[in-house]
Amino acid sequence: MTAPREPVDLAKAYRLLNHGPTVLVSAAADGRRNLMAAAWAMPLDFAPPKVAVVLDKATYTRRLIEASGEFVLQVPVRAQLDLVDALGNVSGTDEEALGGRDKFDAFGLATFAGSATGAPLLEGCAAWLECRLLPEPPIQQRYDLFLGEVIAAQADPRVFSAGRWHFDGHDDLRTLHHVAGGHFIVDGEAVDARPLAPRPR
Amino acid sequence: MTAPREPVDLAKAYRLLNHGPTVLVSAAADGRRNLMAAAWAMPLDFAPPKVAVVLDKATYTRRLIEASGEFVLQVPVRAQLDLVDALGNVSGTDEEALGGRDKFDAFGLATFAGSATGAPLLEGCAAWLECRLLPEPPIQQRYDLFLGEVIAAQADPRVFSAGRWHFDGHDDLRTLHHVAGGHFIVDGEAVDARPLAPRPR
Repeated sequence: MTAPREPVDLAKAYRLLNHGPTVLVSAAADGRRNLMAAAWAMPLDFAPPKVAVVLDKATYTRRLIEASGEFVLQVPVRAQLDLVDALGNVSGTDEEALGGRDKFDAFGLATFAGSATGAPLLEGCAAWLECRLLPEPPIQQRYDLFLGEVIAAQADPRVFSAGRWHFDGHDDLRTLHHVAGGHFIVDGEAVDARPLAPRPR
Repeated sequence: MTAPREPVDLAKAYRLLNHGPTVLVSAAADGRRNLMAAAWAMPLDFAPPKVAVVLDKATYTRRLIEASGEFVLQVPVRAQLDLVDALGNVSGTDEEALGGRDKFDAFGLATFAGSATGAPLLEGCAAWLECRLLPEPPIQQRYDLFLGEVIAAQADPRVFSAGRWHFDGHDDLRTLHHVAGGHFIVDGEAVDARPLAPRPR
């Protein structure tokens, strides 16, 4: 059984990343595919929506993105905690650890096709942003920094709808924020600021 | 009474931002100073530690950073919720709203001096990262994206020590994650991943 998914208005797609969750980056090229964890991702613009993500030179996903010019950022959830950590600890190039399989097969992961890219989307996440690479070779080389334009977005309507996250009653679908070494902070309470005016003169 | 502050080892400074909190960006130049909210900030490297932050062309803080070549990212907390939202909604150039004062004076904010830059550090935050701008004019212009090297870092040891956040018992010091329009998610539970191996062949 697959979880529900609904398209997200591109004008609100930045809100899927605005709260700073750890993401999974997927890509495919030449019949190969991969999926890695990345804590260093953020929105970069509203309209058209853009994102930035740091991809180490050693990663296989980076090579697939450079070859295909596209990638998906997906927002994993608490129920995937162990998987997210494992995906960040084994490389798609580690044939011994993966038994010659790709990460999807080695970890038994179900995927579905996106609407705008050829990269695989992982089932069970809370949100998916399909992106077209905005090539900026100098900063890719110098800082491992990759920019993309979001061309399609989806979310699980149980926890994201009308431009807002709403996790109450869905603790397993709260998103993850990596600190270090497999230690994460889960989304907590939602709060709303009250207007605060400057002091009178 | 000022809250406790302790230096953070630069090798672990990325962990102050790794969980994706909304930050306040401060800068000073030519006798002027400012402070703005930014949800789009992330670590960019471990050693030396680097950060990336998006600063709209309309912001006064950006001008001060371009003039001084330095800035501070500070991590505000739940007790500062209304202030963070207000700092994101009024520009340092809005003389009418601020009554001709700078934002610090207009909102009655206490600051302290950093150890490595001339930018003001806001009291009451959970962490502070003093940064030297890494000038990259093309991406500053094209994407409003600013990169910096972290040259000094501090944190409130009640909630960050030995490279880990520990918010239990300090709900007012939990960090904030902006979604949109003054709506934030506060840090929740801390969880640790268990090892997950690929399936046997």
